[in-house]
Amino acid sequence: MSDLPKSVTINEEGPREGFQIEPGPIETARKIELIDALAQTGLRQIQTVSFVPPKNVPGMADADAVVAGIRRRPGVAYTALWLNERGLLRALASPNLDVFGTISLCPSAAFLQRNQKRTLGENYEAQRSILQTYKKSGVKVRRGGLMATFGCNFEGDIPVDHVVGMVGQLLQLASEAEVTLDFVSLADTMAWATPTSIQRVVGSVRERFPGLRLSLHLHDTRGMGIANAFAGLQMGVDIFDAAVAGLGGCPFAGHRGAAGNVCTEDLVFLCEEMGISTGIDLDSLVETARLAEDIVGHMLPGSVKTGGTLSKFRNAQRVAV
Amino acid sequence: MSDLPKSVTINEEGPREGFQIEPGPIETARKIELIDALAQTGLRQIQTVSFVPPKNVPGMADADAVVAGIRRRPGVAYTALWLNERGLLRALASPNLDVFGTISLCPSAAFLQRNQKRTLGENYEAQRSILQTYKKSGVKVRRGGLMATFGCNFEGDIPVDHVVGMVGQLLQLASEAEVTLDFVSLADTMAWATPTSIQRVVGSVRERFPGLRLSLHLHDTRGMGIANAFAGLQMGVDIFDAAVAGLGGCPFAGHRGAAGNVCTEDLVFLCEEMGISTGIDLDSLVETARLAEDIVGHMLPGSVKTGGTLSKFRNAQRVAV
Repeated sequence: MSDLPKSVTINEEGPREGFQIEPGPIETARKIELIDALAQTGLRQIQTVSFVPPKNVPGMADADAVVAGIRRRPGVAYTALWLNERGLLRALASPNLDVFGTISLCPSAAFLQRNQKRTLGENYEAQRSILQTYKKSGVKVRRGGLMATFGCNFEGDIPVDHVVGMVGQLLQLASEAEVTLDFVSLADTMAWATPTSIQRVVGSVRERFPGLRLSLHLHDTRGMGIANAFAGLQMGVDIFDAAVAGLGGCPFAGHRGAAGNVCTEDLVFLCEEMGISTGIDLDSLVETARLAEDIVGHMLPGSVKTGGTLSKFRNAQRVAV
Repeated sequence: MSDLPKSVTINEEGPREGFQIEPGPIETARKIELIDALAQTGLRQIQTVSFVPPKNVPGMADADAVVAGIRRRPGVAYTALWLNERGLLRALASPNLDVFGTISLCPSAAFLQRNQKRTLGENYEAQRSILQTYKKSGVKVRRGGLMATFGCNFEGDIPVDHVVGMVGQLLQLASEAEVTLDFVSLADTMAWATPTSIQRVVGSVRERFPGLRLSLHLHDTRGMGIANAFAGLQMGVDIFDAAVAGLGGCPFAGHRGAAGNVCTEDLVFLCEEMGISTGIDLDSLVETARLAEDIVGHMLPGSVKTGGTLSKFRNAQRVAV
């Protein structure tokens, strides 16, 4: 009935997602505290900051200081996001970071125009160009990504063939640049996906590119995140982006619609309860999710941090028996 | 890969779940307003109140007045909950109600003792007795239910064989009383279920009782509700309990752990986007979810009422094309 993986890799994006969207100023030391706490939970990849102009994203003005303050834990990759060469240079200047290259396409021409002021063709050329920059800078390229894979507020439903074609373009770009992508990430940027469209799109990509490892980036705007992750697991997907406590989405500020990756501890609960190993200590992660709430100063959307894990009930049972 | 139903029936429990747990007093007229609004959305079954002693549940002190004020819409069943014969008599005295009988067992002896101060055997006899009461009162018995089907805070994981055996006991009770159950409801009372355990338990019950129609009652305490519903749909389950806006669960009051059925409009979004008909107008239901928030005076946990439906984006597309 399904093709569940034995283990999954979770890419924690909470610090970057959260600190860029939270309205209030958050002390640099507390941002570092959260990243250091996340590194203690068993997570092996943490996206820490984005290097973007402070006038666009005031919450990232201290990005260099945040990264400089991390106490690196062996075995954990600390990554960052950048949107242009200037951002990449800041990342490369940070000895605490693991800098990996990404190329990204978007099947929605309308979203691309609105978001990056580029046509599909211009964006393809821009990726070709950034691959050359990576090569010059000695940056290993790991990830190809597609935005708006499952639907778009500005273009509606996205034909599956179009998605499959664009995955082909990512592989073509990588091949031209003589690099091998570790995986391709399919992002549900505007939260259009349901388990059925996950099955349809992932299935079609799989059929066309059987050996290709896939990752899912799922926004929880419409409450489908965990169900979509489950559908992905059933299709054998074994890499997921997630955000501790659901950082980045905030029902109180009314911008839950704009953000909100699937919540890391809810995803870990799903996987571990299903017998899929994450390498993460769920109780420790739940503590860290509560720390995240303390740091931002308001409740965050994740469920397990409020509902609790099952370990104490199972432990009580063991003692009773 | 799956056995998705073409359509599902959703049993709305929001008014009963919400009004019994909300701390503040809510005007009777506003409770009626919510029930009347729900009846306009296409929902065909609404659980309106519970007939319980006001000293136990102050929010249900006006249950008779709420039911008396409903403007009945043809085609909608208005139901109520009761826990003993006295409650049943109050329900029977309400001409606005559709009174259907339920029998209920629980595979967790520990939970049953704690919750109803009965042993498994005593509870079995109590169901036998209530079946006689239904017969005397001319009440049609429709539903058999199991509580704590997927796990229990006081007993831990529940063996699947035990669940299957108890479904057999429900059918045995019905058979003795010469009634036919329309369906059996499996309740995840303490939110232990994951999609895997839904598959395992529903699959085992199906295997043993192939013709039996099943319903799921899913609490969303750990954020698994929609994923569990999806797993149920994949197993062909076509009846679900749900609560508009996630009424009954409230992250602000800190008792989300104790309540919180899966959110009706999120479930309708899931189904309709997957091509499964619910008979419900999602945009109208989302409006009603916002009304529910207005009535209780704080935000409620559902996602689609905040994230929005996809209809306006699809309509804009249609105009543009």
